[in-house]
Amino acid sequence: MLVPQARYDAVRRSHEERLLRALREQGPLRRSEIARTLGLSRSSTSEIAGGLLRQGAVIVLGTDAEGRAGSGRPAERLALDPSSGQFLGVDFGHRTVHVAVADASHEIVAAGAAAYPRATAEWPERVQTAFTLLDRLHDESGVHYRALQGVGVGVPGPYSSALAPRPTRRSGRPFGDTAEGVAEAFSSRFETPVVLDNNTRLAALGEAVRAGAEVRNLLYVRVADGVGGGLVVDGRLVTGSTGLAGELGHVRAVPAGGKACRCGKRGCVETLASTPAVLARCRQEGVNARTLADLRTHVERAHPVVDRVLREAGQTIGAAVSAVAVAVDPDEIVIGGEIARVAPVLVEQVAATVRYDRFPHATSEPRVRAGWLSDESGALGALAALFHSSPLIADYPVAAYDDRPAQPRSSAS
Amino acid sequence: MLVPQARYDAVRRSHEERLLRALREQGPLRRSEIARTLGLSRSSTSEIAGGLLRQGAVIVLGTDAEGRAGSGRPAERLALDPSSGQFLGVDFGHRTVHVAVADASHEIVAAGAAAYPRATAEWPERVQTAFTLLDRLHDESGVHYRALQGVGVGVPGPYSSALAPRPTRRSGRPFGDTAEGVAEAFSSRFETPVVLDNNTRLAALGEAVRAGAEVRNLLYVRVADGVGGGLVVDGRLVTGSTGLAGELGHVRAVPAGGKACRCGKRGCVETLASTPAVLARCRQEGVNARTLADLRTHVERAHPVVDRVLREAGQTIGAAVSAVAVAVDPDEIVIGGEIARVAPVLVEQVAATVRYDRFPHATSEPRVRAGWLSDESGALGALAALFHSSPLIADYPVAAYDDRPAQPRSSAS
Repeated sequence: MLVPQARYDAVRRSHEERLLRALREQGPLRRSEIARTLGLSRSSTSEIAGGLLRQGAVIVLGTDAEGRAGSGRPAERLALDPSSGQFLGVDFGHRTVHVAVADASHEIVAAGAAAYPRATAEWPERVQTAFTLLDRLHDESGVHYRALQGVGVGVPGPYSSALAPRPTRRSGRPFGDTAEGVAEAFSSRFETPVVLDNNTRLAALGEAVRAGAEVRNLLYVRVADGVGGGLVVDGRLVTGSTGLAGELGHVRAVPAGGKACRCGKRGCVETLASTPAVLARCRQEGVNARTLADLRTHVERAHPVVDRVLREAGQTIGAAVSAVAVAVDPDEIVIGGEIARVAPVLVEQVAATVRYDRFPHATSEPRVRAGWLSDESGALGALAALFHSSPLIADYPVAAYDDRPAQPRSSAS
Repeated sequence: MLVPQARYDAVRRSHEERLLRALREQGPLRRSEIARTLGLSRSSTSEIAGGLLRQGAVIVLGTDAEGRAGSGRPAERLALDPSSGQFLGVDFGHRTVHVAVADASHEIVAAGAAAYPRATAEWPERVQTAFTLLDRLHDESGVHYRALQGVGVGVPGPYSSALAPRPTRRSGRPFGDTAEGVAEAFSSRFETPVVLDNNTRLAALGEAVRAGAEVRNLLYVRVADGVGGGLVVDGRLVTGSTGLAGELGHVRAVPAGGKACRCGKRGCVETLASTPAVLARCRQEGVNARTLADLRTHVERAHPVVDRVLREAGQTIGAAVSAVAVAVDPDEIVIGGEIARVAPVLVEQVAATVRYDRFPHATSEPRVRAGWLSDESGALGALAALFHSSPLIADYPVAAYDDRPAQPRSSAS
């Protein structure tokens, strides 16, 4: 029973996506026009349109008396409901969850963030924080989730849907300690497919989608509380054999010994180049730097000690990135995380180190740049994953990744 | 004119491959049986069989009087010609060219090697050395090249057909200084498609094909006169954005300074861990080691100084490989080159370093092993590339990569 139903759902979903695309590209259409465009019978078209109307994905624009073809029902025109969320991206950070909702045009219609009730929140609390945030966005901006085509979820730590066992619904235990349960929770709340992956890896995909089709190979490092990363090779996100690909923060930076890392090793890149490590190093050198805002002030004044500390961190990251870049030969190396925006010298130093280490015969060298996606728009990476695994990725408009803060649209617009 | 002809050729080649496969799997067949198996008309079948007969790929086994269906021609049976080379692999080393010829069953029917007339031989001389060697194999083993389905060519240095401009036939200049000309020379001599790539990268592909389908991600390092490498990610050979992917010998091993490398940088892995570098280091330590044979003797006697030198080289390679392994998360890390067979301790040390540097949360760690393909069977990597780009790769029998020296079959067998 399960497989035929799944196949039927897939066919229906594909028809729905084609219908939504037609409305997106051509504007409001009559049912007969939709049937012609989709190459379906009138009755099939009515069935699919009826489902989308019930979900609230499309609305009826009223009758078009002039256009009536003699007898029958009034020739209503169908249009996209601008307040209908079609895609939901959710990014679970260590302390905060970010969400972004895109409509059928892939434009962000609502976005927000919420901190967990406590730092040690378990998965059920984190998921509840996200659900409450989504309810609030519904109340404030009118966006609704009845017509979601899919949910993309980013989680911290090593994880990949590609490698995870297929989630099963276990009664009495909606989700456990693991990320699989998270996918299940979203899937049963929104009755839609969920794509779940490591959030830094999804950010790498977001940057690659944003960079455009000519960037086939991209190396992404995210510098924040920890140092993470992701690889795009030949236009595809690399998960690795055990789901751990891209963990560039845990390349050894100190040949032997070094500070203990939270991963259990010593001397990792993360122990020297994470944002807290950089701030601590500044303080060791007698510079008052507790927050990124402090660091920004020092950078603006070109504090020589802070400059040196940032260059050292850049060199550490650059050396690890160079080794991988020699092996992978990427088009772009992207340094993400707030510190990359606050302190351009960090990115400059990575670029200098990569240039110094690059293969001299190379006809071109990889571009090294700060990430376009801000930490706040992390949920967009999850959306990118979703579009990437959907047939819609082909016409995904890159503009939706613009770094401008998303402007929630009112339900009336 | 060009495109329709190319399309016609592709269709014809596909029919030829199916016919050859039928003969390989079912043994000698009558034309009527072939027509039935291929689902083609008798006249199409005769046309295709006629072409293969003219090329010498198949032979006529004589009439089968009992099988005659009344009137018409005698029901001859067609069979594969065991002396007909179907695939040719050519590996241009720095001093020697290796070739291997496989029949329609992908078994090696002839193989050999020849040194260039001089160390500084230009491409035309190297290609001529290969052609002379192939003529000699024809004379000695009876193998012929009239029915070649394709030629795979490995060349040293950064190169990939995937990135190269399409070769054009220029009158009066059969090939220039570049590897493109080499492909052209083979293509016009054998009138068949040529796949050309970096030979170390092809060896990586050969190891991955040999390892079987469950190995999706593989990191390959070849330690010889230089140190090279290749990456297989998600079952695909990675060429990189400028064709330089896999150059693991040129990862920086010394943070600053170090010995000058032939690549133009300083302190590369190659300057410390190539075979000549290891031998030189042994001599610096007062050990008489001029050749790999000397090294083998010392290893067999467990010479403590030689052991230490090999472990240091293994650590250098291991550190570079670890950084890349953390990023790529491979199933297997393969150390190729003669020295890996001669000195197992080198591979053991790479394994220990990788284990030390691996991400502690990993559910499994990559297998580290010496390469299966010997330097002598380098041409098999080129063959692997060919099978990989051919529809035949699906049923390519891995046994053909066995490390046993290839036994040329006589034309009578």
